[in-house]
Amino acid sequence: MDTALKQQFGSDNYAGICPEVMQAMNDANQGHAASYGDDVYTQKACDSLRSLFGTDCEVFFVFNGTAANALALSGLCQGHNSIICQQQAHIDVDECGAPEFFTHGAKMLSAIGEGGKLTPADVTRLANVDADNFHSHKPKVLSLTQSTECGTVYSIEELKALTATARELGLHTHMDGARFANAVVSLGCEPADITWRAGIDVLCFGGTKNGLGIGEAVIFFNRSLAEEFAWRVKRAGQMCSKMRMLASQWSGVLEGEVWRKNASHANDMATRLAKGLAAFDGVTLNYPVQVNAVFVNLPDKTKTDMHDKGWHFYDFPGAGSRLMCAWDTLPETVDAFLEDLKGCLPQP
Amino acid sequence: MDTALKQQFGSDNYAGICPEVMQAMNDANQGHAASYGDDVYTQKACDSLRSLFGTDCEVFFVFNGTAANALALSGLCQGHNSIICQQQAHIDVDECGAPEFFTHGAKMLSAIGEGGKLTPADVTRLANVDADNFHSHKPKVLSLTQSTECGTVYSIEELKALTATARELGLHTHMDGARFANAVVSLGCEPADITWRAGIDVLCFGGTKNGLGIGEAVIFFNRSLAEEFAWRVKRAGQMCSKMRMLASQWSGVLEGEVWRKNASHANDMATRLAKGLAAFDGVTLNYPVQVNAVFVNLPDKTKTDMHDKGWHFYDFPGAGSRLMCAWDTLPETVDAFLEDLKGCLPQP
Amino acid sequence: MDTALKQQFGSDNYAGICPEVMQAMNDANQGHAASYGDDVYTQKACDSLRSLFGTDCEVFFVFNGTAANALALSGLCQGHNSIICQQQAHIDVDECGAPEFFTHGAKMLSAIGEGGKLTPADVTRLANVDADNFHSHKPKVLSLTQSTECGTVYSIEELKALTATARELGLHTHMDGARFANAVVSLGCEPADITWRAGIDVLCFGGTKNGLGIGEAVIFFNRSLAEEFAWRVKRAGQMCSKMRMLASQWSGVLEGEVWRKNASHANDMATRLAKGLAAFDGVTLNYPVQVNAVFVNLPDKTKTDMHDKGWHFYDFPGAGSRLMCAWDTLPETVDAFLEDLKGCLPQP
Amino acid sequence: MDTALKQQFGSDNYAGICPEVMQAMNDANQGHAASYGDDVYTQKACDSLRSLFGTDCEVFFVFNGTAANALALSGLCQGHNSIICQQQAHIDVDECGAPEFFTHGAKMLSAIGEGGKLTPADVTRLANVDADNFHSHKPKVLSLTQSTECGTVYSIEELKALTATARELGLHTHMDGARFANAVVSLGCEPADITWRAGIDVLCFGGTKNGLGIGEAVIFFNRSLAEEFAWRVKRAGQMCSKMRMLASQWSGVLEGEVWRKNASHANDMATRLAKGLAAFDGVTLNYPVQVNAVFVNLPDKTKTDMHDKGWHFYDFPGAGSRLMCAWDTLPETVDAFLEDLKGCLPQP
Repeated sequence: MDTALKQQFGSDNYAGICPEVMQAMNDANQGHAASYGDDVYTQKACDSLRSLFGTDCEVFFVFNGTAANALALSGLCQGHNSIICQQQAHIDVDECGAPEFFTHGAKMLSAIGEGGKLTPADVTRLANVDADNFHSHKPKVLSLTQSTECGTVYSIEELKALTATARELGLHTHMDGARFANAVVSLGCEPADITWRAGIDVLCFGGTKNGLGIGEAVIFFNRSLAEEFAWRVKRAGQMCSKMRMLASQWSGVLEGEVWRKNASHANDMATRLAKGLAAFDGVTLNYPVQVNAVFVNLPDKTKTDMHDKGWHFYDFPGAGSRLMCAWDTLPETVDAFLEDLKGCLPQP
Repeated sequence: MDTALKQQFGSDNYAGICPEVMQAMNDANQGHAASYGDDVYTQKACDSLRSLFGTDCEVFFVFNGTAANALALSGLCQGHNSIICQQQAHIDVDECGAPEFFTHGAKMLSAIGEGGKLTPADVTRLANVDADNFHSHKPKVLSLTQSTECGTVYSIEELKALTATARELGLHTHMDGARFANAVVSLGCEPADITWRAGIDVLCFGGTKNGLGIGEAVIFFNRSLAEEFAWRVKRAGQMCSKMRMLASQWSGVLEGEVWRKNASHANDMATRLAKGLAAFDGVTLNYPVQVNAVFVNLPDKTKTDMHDKGWHFYDFPGAGSRLMCAWDTLPETVDAFLEDLKGCLPQP
Repeated sequence: MDTALKQQFGSDNYAGICPEVMQAMNDANQGHAASYGDDVYTQKACDSLRSLFGTDCEVFFVFNGTAANALALSGLCQGHNSIICQQQAHIDVDECGAPEFFTHGAKMLSAIGEGGKLTPADVTRLANVDADNFHSHKPKVLSLTQSTECGTVYSIEELKALTATARELGLHTHMDGARFANAVVSLGCEPADITWRAGIDVLCFGGTKNGLGIGEAVIFFNRSLAEEFAWRVKRAGQMCSKMRMLASQWSGVLEGEVWRKNASHANDMATRLAKGLAAFDGVTLNYPVQVNAVFVNLPDKTKTDMHDKGWHFYDFPGAGSRLMCAWDTLPETVDAFLEDLKGCLPQP
Repeated sequence: MDTALKQQFGSDNYAGICPEVMQAMNDANQGHAASYGDDVYTQKACDSLRSLFGTDCEVFFVFNGTAANALALSGLCQGHNSIICQQQAHIDVDECGAPEFFTHGAKMLSAIGEGGKLTPADVTRLANVDADNFHSHKPKVLSLTQSTECGTVYSIEELKALTATARELGLHTHMDGARFANAVVSLGCEPADITWRAGIDVLCFGGTKNGLGIGEAVIFFNRSLAEEFAWRVKRAGQMCSKMRMLASQWSGVLEGEVWRKNASHANDMATRLAKGLAAFDGVTLNYPVQVNAVFVNLPDKTKTDMHDKGWHFYDFPGAGSRLMCAWDTLPETVDAFLEDLKGCLPQP
């Protein structure tokens, strides 16, 4: 088995561009087109997203997930505000302060929650500051990651309870949807069910992990929050000049529900992997496997031996080893991993 | 002639991705690869750039030119500093304050110069503030656009004189090279001749206008200024996760000197266009045509008539109508424009 | 005549604290008082200001004029916005980018105007950008300096015309009132007449040049713009812990209309100086003397000779030599200046 | 006993200006003086500070402690860096994000430490990130609070061990000295012993809590870190125009070692209070009382009853009720508090 295949569990962004996206880019790459989004390809992709969500949302295409999150948050709060999130949230620990940069200093307030998910009680507790206490950041945003950093998924009811709490507390709601498609597939619902119908103001819809090469969409369901957002995008260096090259990638996954197919496959592979792992004595999982991530506890010696065999994956503090599946992960690769693991586990 | 073709003189970013770049992306889109630049495609593109410039420079790939410029400048100065540039510089008038955002408030100081080019005297005058006058921003960077916003080119000697002045004044030097390839071709020199050998600290090498879909390179010849730059890139939302998709585009133009071919062609088309224009009575050009831009003075009625015929181009205050040629502009399109223009000019 | 006296024309902030302010500080310095403004002295000063302006405005005390302006502007616009001001405006040329820092990058758009004053036509011209042109900062604020940097005063009618234009263009209105008291006295009006009654949203009322040691007031007549402003003040390091020490200084000038007396005196001294100057052959003034500043054209040799005699004053590009009078400038000092000048002027 | 007296344990900034400082301000308030620090009073105060520390440090006067800390930190790191501090550090929890604002987004990394004090092991652990991991802020500064937020004091040895660790890790060192004088007095050392001689790069020397009305000093022992700092001060709205009014306050406490007298008195009053508290059955203190703060555990009913009697103090999460003494706290007030408390404690 080649080395690259063995590395893929390291992240779902080790995968490439799916064929439908590559085809769509090629289709859009015909002759000349006006720049900065004033073209038919961008119009089409925006319309497809509005149709997918069944509402007249505002759509902006940006280059990556860090920018999508940070820009969206910058439209929801000021530098003297705080943002409530889960302790492992990408915006707090993996973006080198992009949210602080784009919001000019907003503070992340985090709680560990349960199974990677915040509860309404967490939100209430974190937002509990005196209304006129200007010594601390004033809470303004609730940011939820769907699916979560732990590979779990908020149910529709959980989301509604959280956004209801947010509304009572005067907080806007942001969803980091780097793996949004995986969550939709997992819940068997429609995209609208876990976004605007569940009280979400703005969604960062991740494309890269779903088969795009480059590209995320910032979708404002609460359109009033999108005011002057194009200026924010431009000055952040996130306004693509050859916009059709970003937008057409979206059309590639939106046409024919490729996004659903890609996410389903990734989720299925994680389930296959989880089942195989659970069959081994003494191997435990840290979270229910609801999307395309598996967090497993392995003995140190086993991990070293697997790494020596070329398998690549990361440890996450307190959450074990993370194994990610992608839109193109092969069942054979999953099985080969399990087979090798079998030989690396301590003999009973 | 189809509408899209007639629009292309509006900007050189109306063109698509050149075939060699598309091929290189496809080649890189095989199986899995580590993310964030830890892959062979990125290594190869960086090495090719180092080879092209003949020096061990630091290379960073980012998504667009606005980000490239703003990020590079953020590594050269602080918010209380000022940046000296030409009055029409993209960083001052076309980026919605991205440089101010990324540098946290640095001030642009501009002069009109001559033919779109700053002179050493301009730089000296603008940088002339008392050494301890903390009431105004302290000058710290000289930013030069090569080729310029007026479609002219700094000669090697002009650049050396400007960077010598900068060095005396304690200024770092930045080159906005959105159309760098066009300048190199125009001068018939090597990339090194107008960058590090001419005293430039950091170059923003534009890919998009040279045939890439998305992608610019920030190249530090003065490596000490690149310290912690990867952190700047990351927190600015400019660190591509599937980096091979950015890097391979560069390989597409670097292999076989496609960048030179593309730039040459665009320049040639502008020359063809300029010659045709100059042959008309009463039509004048505002600047020497040295790269792929033509600035022409046309009667208002003529402009309206041409717009009515579907030809698209913009007026620039004080500089006339700008006509841009791209890597894929056809001679037939140039000729068709001239033919139509002939009919729209006032009869003598 | 002692050296310090001869230096005072350099600026009206060379003067000290007036006796009434010093007394008020002493009166407030009794025992203990709660911090951060939760004390009777602060309450009293706020009430006095509300009474002075005859409206229920929001009042915040900050440390200096740079901070007052920059903070106020940060409440009126975002980093992707622009601020229209006069070319010599303090916010554009004398605050080392504080407005850019506090607003996170807003751009100053300036016009020279007439006699140091912007006109509605200037505002309209500067704000004239396409509504959806995200390549440039979006205009959001009109900032007026009253009295102006040229020592002139906007009439009530001029202000109303300007703010009406601003309103039509969707701009908020800010008044830099570093020498607000001098303007009120000059016009013989009430403070309300040139602020909220004339369409001003927020005023930075300067205390330092009126006899305070440290302290400016930011006064929001448009209270909705003051939302969360206390948080802005705090995080900018402008929230005074022993607030009574700032607030009581204001009471020192507000009680018994000391502010009016101090401003009147300064204005009168400038008028005395201007009359003396105008009486000399060949000496011309650049602007009508309406407050406490005189801009005079003097021969280079005369300036050098006056400097040699110990007199201190600055040249302003295009505006001549600036002579400032303060609340404590003595008629004798004015006369001594004129006497010395007489000897330094070229003999006819 | 009057209400104000009973409120004073709430904070040491409820106290006013000490007589020596008021006198110094009056002395400096003679006639005219050049602004922005170019005056004899500022020169004198700077010289006194250099003399006090026995080294040629760079001195800047700013308005308050929040600004002093945030500005100093902005000179030590960039927005993509992190700052290591103790969990209750003022910079992390009480300044509404001023450090994030001034540094443009630097992240606070905190540990609880022991007795309010960080240990070298804490620093090593927090700074332990991969050298090239650009996904997280890169550690750059160690910030120590002396005396601590818990009213404890780092010994000279503890400081040296911490700064040695910082040096090894490539971290600059900042001291938040809001109550620096109290720490010096407590240790019976010289100011130099716990600053530059102990490896501190920059100290924020607190004046307000020592008897000034307004004013803190930022003192760079590592002068290279002070480069262009005056520009930072100016653009942050912290450059006092009538600088003599800030500087003279410092002279008021520096002359005749008033700072030492004031701090000693406050410390002594806390010790008197602590002794009295410890004598009560069932009353425990949370930290050794080494400066002017006492953290005491009181029954809820007792606290309510004391509040009802007019005594004011705050609870700190996990640290009990905080009682602060100031330069002017009277022994009689301490005794009255203890007397009242006696009556409010549960009867055995």
